[in-house]
Amino acid sequence: MSAAAFALVDWGTTSFRAWACAADGTVLTERRAPDGLTAVTDGDFAGVLERHLAAMGVGAGVPAVLCGMVGSRTGWTEAAYLPVPTVLEGLANRATAVSCAGRPVHVLPGLAQHGEAPDVMRGEETQLLGVVAEGFDDGLVCMPGTHSKWVRLEGGTVSGFATFMTGELFQLLRSHSILKQAVETDARLQPDDPGFAEGLALGLGRPSEVTNALFALRAGWLLEGIPPARQSARLSGLLIGLEFAGAMARLGRPTRVALLASGPIASLYEAAFEAAGLRLDRRLDADLCVRHGLLSAARSLHPDRSSP
Amino acid sequence: MSAAAFALVDWGTTSFRAWACAADGTVLTERRAPDGLTAVTDGDFAGVLERHLAAMGVGAGVPAVLCGMVGSRTGWTEAAYLPVPTVLEGLANRATAVSCAGRPVHVLPGLAQHGEAPDVMRGEETQLLGVVAEGFDDGLVCMPGTHSKWVRLEGGTVSGFATFMTGELFQLLRSHSILKQAVETDARLQPDDPGFAEGLALGLGRPSEVTNALFALRAGWLLEGIPPARQSARLSGLLIGLEFAGAMARLGRPTRVALLASGPIASLYEAAFEAAGLRLDRRLDADLCVRHGLLSAARSLHPDRSSP
Repeated sequence: MSAAAFALVDWGTTSFRAWACAADGTVLTERRAPDGLTAVTDGDFAGVLERHLAAMGVGAGVPAVLCGMVGSRTGWTEAAYLPVPTVLEGLANRATAVSCAGRPVHVLPGLAQHGEAPDVMRGEETQLLGVVAEGFDDGLVCMPGTHSKWVRLEGGTVSGFATFMTGELFQLLRSHSILKQAVETDARLQPDDPGFAEGLALGLGRPSEVTNALFALRAGWLLEGIPPARQSARLSGLLIGLEFAGAMARLGRPTRVALLASGPIASLYEAAFEAAGLRLDRRLDADLCVRHGLLSAARSLHPDRSSP
Repeated sequence: MSAAAFALVDWGTTSFRAWACAADGTVLTERRAPDGLTAVTDGDFAGVLERHLAAMGVGAGVPAVLCGMVGSRTGWTEAAYLPVPTVLEGLANRATAVSCAGRPVHVLPGLAQHGEAPDVMRGEETQLLGVVAEGFDDGLVCMPGTHSKWVRLEGGTVSGFATFMTGELFQLLRSHSILKQAVETDARLQPDDPGFAEGLALGLGRPSEVTNALFALRAGWLLEGIPPARQSARLSGLLIGLEFAGAMARLGRPTRVALLASGPIASLYEAAFEAAGLRLDRRLDADLCVRHGLLSAARSLHPDRSSP
């Protein structure tokens, strides 16, 4: 086994993911743990990082590059937001160095959008650096999730973005609202569920009626006996359709578009692109892109280690 | 003190309100208690009712008329929904009688809308009967609340309605979402707060962007230091503006409109009517209307007691 040239870490609020990579980018070891920010006690980020890297066999001098909420005010160190427009290739130059037992450790900054539509991201900018590394540097990138992001790229520069609370609203409504009996919580969502298509059409075509359509989920269950699994699919479609309508309104209808997702959510969004009449130019894996983004930043920070 | 001719009760999920009225409608005593459905143990609705009526000095033979969630599946007895269109004056004829120690007790039915936009109400139909009794029987009635209702009246008939989850979403978002730090929970909302007007304009004018505007509340607090009280007003304006946009889309722009509200929410909705360019024809008090509706039903059910 060749020695690791870099340790790459995506450190979020609830999860920790790390890769040890050779100079040519080959993954030597990978590690996932529930050690997100909320699991770190007494601010001992250095201790948690060293424990994981030791378990992965990453030596003491190997540089580490981090992204995600670890760079927030409540993380290890505050890596100040860069204002958009931002050239993604310049991310590494604006990283914040932290001291960690002689190991060079850098935390990548997030992005901020000031003005009329204030917005922030932390972690997604590194995925976007990976998207550019994959050759997609012009058009809209859709990044579904708890807080979905839609990002406008122009020649590798982030010129604007918009976050939508889609995933969080979905969870809140099915777990904490009057809809909880009407909407199945454990249903595995399928893009071919007719409820999903109905919800999508409503969210895309009649966005102003969304809070009425939410109550109709309960009324439809109560009056017509529509099964909760169907209502869950409808709720998902409704919120995703609304997100698409809003993204088009905020960022304009794109000429080129990429979907950056991992797991089951990718197929729901692919169906939404079709319903919205948008042809997807690229489908990219979110996990892969964050690793590629971290690797790209690590190479910029440590050019001496990049060619074996 | 003249003897009570009727006992009128608005019995909801979390509250119990009762009035003892003379034959001419004069209120003899009024009582409010937190004895909503959720506080009734072992289904002893009769016991709770009798205890309150006894405390109000209402004699054993005096008839009682009830409305609200007490007529739901989880209440005292299920008073089946009447499908719209419904002539409000016919509500009393469709009441469900329950047995209660020799006292005549009737529970008024709710309304249901079947079809493409399923919807239900329980309690509001009785307020609407009061609205008709007040002389407003043609146009739209706006009934703000946890689940705001907009109702189309045509010659005293409910021809359609739409419920919006405005109040519940407001509470969910400020108490359980990522917005909770950014949005002040205890702020007393004022219609002249500039944040309220900004939120209204956004909700009315750009409804598709609502889930982006929600996230922007957090980003604006984080990046620009916008105070949580301002963001709370903006959230309220945003959701109310969205409700207005949706109500116009669902029910059409009205020629005549009445606002049925009690307390501080009335002034927020008055400001929303102005922002939406709608002139209010009537402002009615919700508490008064439910009592008038119950009285109207009691008189239909017991014509012999109506003239002293």
